[in-house]
Amino acid sequence: MRELGEFALIERINAGRVQAPGVLLGPGDDAALVAAPDGRFVVTTDMLVQDRHFRLDWSGPEDVGRKAIAQNAADVVAMGATPTAFVVALGCPADTPLEVIDGLADGMWAEAARAGASIAGGDLVRSRELVVSVTAFGDPGRGAPVTRAGARVGDVVAVAGRLGWSAAGLAAFTAGATGPEVAEALAAHRVPQPPYALVLDALGRGRQGGKKLSIAQRISPAETDAPDIGLHALTDVSDGLLADLGHIASSSGVAIDLDSAALRDPALESVAALLEADAAQWILTGGEDHAFAGVWAPGRALPPGWVAIGRVVAGRGLTVDGVAQTGDGGWESFRGADSSSGDRPR
Amino acid sequence: MRELGEFALIERINAGRVQAPGVLLGPGDDAALVAAPDGRFVVTTDMLVQDRHFRLDWSGPEDVGRKAIAQNAADVVAMGATPTAFVVALGCPADTPLEVIDGLADGMWAEAARAGASIAGGDLVRSRELVVSVTAFGDPGRGAPVTRAGARVGDVVAVAGRLGWSAAGLAAFTAGATGPEVAEALAAHRVPQPPYALVLDALGRGRQGGKKLSIAQRISPAETDAPDIGLHALTDVSDGLLADLGHIASSSGVAIDLDSAALRDPALESVAALLEADAAQWILTGGEDHAFAGVWAPGRALPPGWVAIGRVVAGRGLTVDGVAQTGDGGWESFRGADSSSGDRPR
Repeated sequence: MRELGEFALIERINAGRVQAPGVLLGPGDDAALVAAPDGRFVVTTDMLVQDRHFRLDWSGPEDVGRKAIAQNAADVVAMGATPTAFVVALGCPADTPLEVIDGLADGMWAEAARAGASIAGGDLVRSRELVVSVTAFGDPGRGAPVTRAGARVGDVVAVAGRLGWSAAGLAAFTAGATGPEVAEALAAHRVPQPPYALVLDALGRGRQGGKKLSIAQRISPAETDAPDIGLHALTDVSDGLLADLGHIASSSGVAIDLDSAALRDPALESVAALLEADAAQWILTGGEDHAFAGVWAPGRALPPGWVAIGRVVAGRGLTVDGVAQTGDGGWESFRGADSSSGDRPR
Repeated sequence: MRELGEFALIERINAGRVQAPGVLLGPGDDAALVAAPDGRFVVTTDMLVQDRHFRLDWSGPEDVGRKAIAQNAADVVAMGATPTAFVVALGCPADTPLEVIDGLADGMWAEAARAGASIAGGDLVRSRELVVSVTAFGDPGRGAPVTRAGARVGDVVAVAGRLGWSAAGLAAFTAGATGPEVAEALAAHRVPQPPYALVLDALGRGRQGGKKLSIAQRISPAETDAPDIGLHALTDVSDGLLADLGHIASSSGVAIDLDSAALRDPALESVAALLEADAAQWILTGGEDHAFAGVWAPGRALPPGWVAIGRVVAGRGLTVDGVAQTGDGGWESFRGADSSSGDRPR
């Protein structure tokens, strides 16, 4: 890629791409222009570093690109917002093969499209190791953003999407396991598939992208609230179920008790048996699946695709079947010794 | 920083910070929430890599933090938009001293405040080398964004801010020059000072940040245009004057002729004499000062702080006093041999 140069490479990456309707001005000027029909936008950013957050001997460049977009899109949707656009800063060694750059870009565009959005711009620089920095935007669509702070005693805790499969895949990669029995786990670790639609459909919004709203519709949320669907708190499971629900519990000043029976996953238990591991541990502490965990008002039917796994109770912290959970139970970037074992070791 | 862990470190970085009014929800949830009163926002992203875009033996961590924000804020202002917020992803080696992290954060917050905005959120991961990835947001404030494509034959080309001083500083650092004669150049290389206000004041907007607009004010640009101040094209000088004006010329389908006498800077010529260098070369090809280059309708007085340096003419490309400029004349990330000499060598 050294021969091509930055500008030609950027042109190559952007050639033939079609921007989502919310991207009013794409790459090529000092900045991009993105629609924010609600008069507000949610924004989140995540950095992925080679051999720490991904390994190119385990994942193809397209997988890495998809994962980088997916984990940011999941954060946008976890605020109850509809993804509108992404920007990407890419640092790569000068000897990075063009196929890696192309694959990263293709994966990013594919996952951005799955989230109903596109890549509005970016930056490309030389670095010693491959670094992918994604920033994602979403439209709250007249709803108040769904934070972690709204859980109330008596609420139902539910999840949409799979738990523990990425951790199972990591265990399989680490053990060098192959074959059809672990294929699904390996795939889940390579590319998480956050079920964006299960949140957005529940909010009655789907993927509206940059749909143009009339002036009358563009009034502020304080002036007209979105219909109350009883979703009091929401997050995506990126650090592990216990850790992420722990954030909801502490932000909301409540405790959460989980029902271990509701969390069981026979298919995952088969993989665990094969690898002599504990499926429950993967489910409770495995991050990176980017399932959504929501806290819902009691006494209503959950939306399609959502499964009740526990209840909000008075107190502090997390319990499973009434038993307190100790330890970190989640992922932090700097704690403990350095590790060379790859994706989010803990 | 290994002992602190990611979450404690993020808490430390954010402690006591006051968000700008446009940041409706700051760090601590899955995503931040930023005001976009115009119903659109501009966005730009830049990645800085240690020993390539900055050197910690030349610049303190605060300088690096300020520079990272300044170059992104300049891109926002170069679209004719008012900065509203930034997000920052930071990759650092586990043995990075806390003072470096604190200094980076302090510098970022200081420059964000100078631009009328604040840091709405971020990410912190471990990496082999220090990587700072900034994404910046701005509000077009009912104006059409000022792109590079609007220059017309007969327009006046003008700049706001200094040119060539960062390149002079790089030359001084490279030569090991010190002393009062080069102090200003060294400082300019450490921390660019884009004159945001000279653009925003000219647009009649100043730094409105996330000022709450009434519904009546939040009408779309198509419905009420901002007053026409005759600013047809705008960019910031980040790759070098010839390169950046070259982008305007090619985007607009015109040529630009510069007046070398108008570009002369006696103070810079003194520095150049000392270092046996060519001040005109620094002015024409030196990047990173983040001055603003604008193309204005003829026959009007330029706003305060703007200096005419040339004229838009028919044709293609750049000329100085009618002489064609060849060669790259600007900065690209991957072209040519690898370099270990630090900041944006060319």
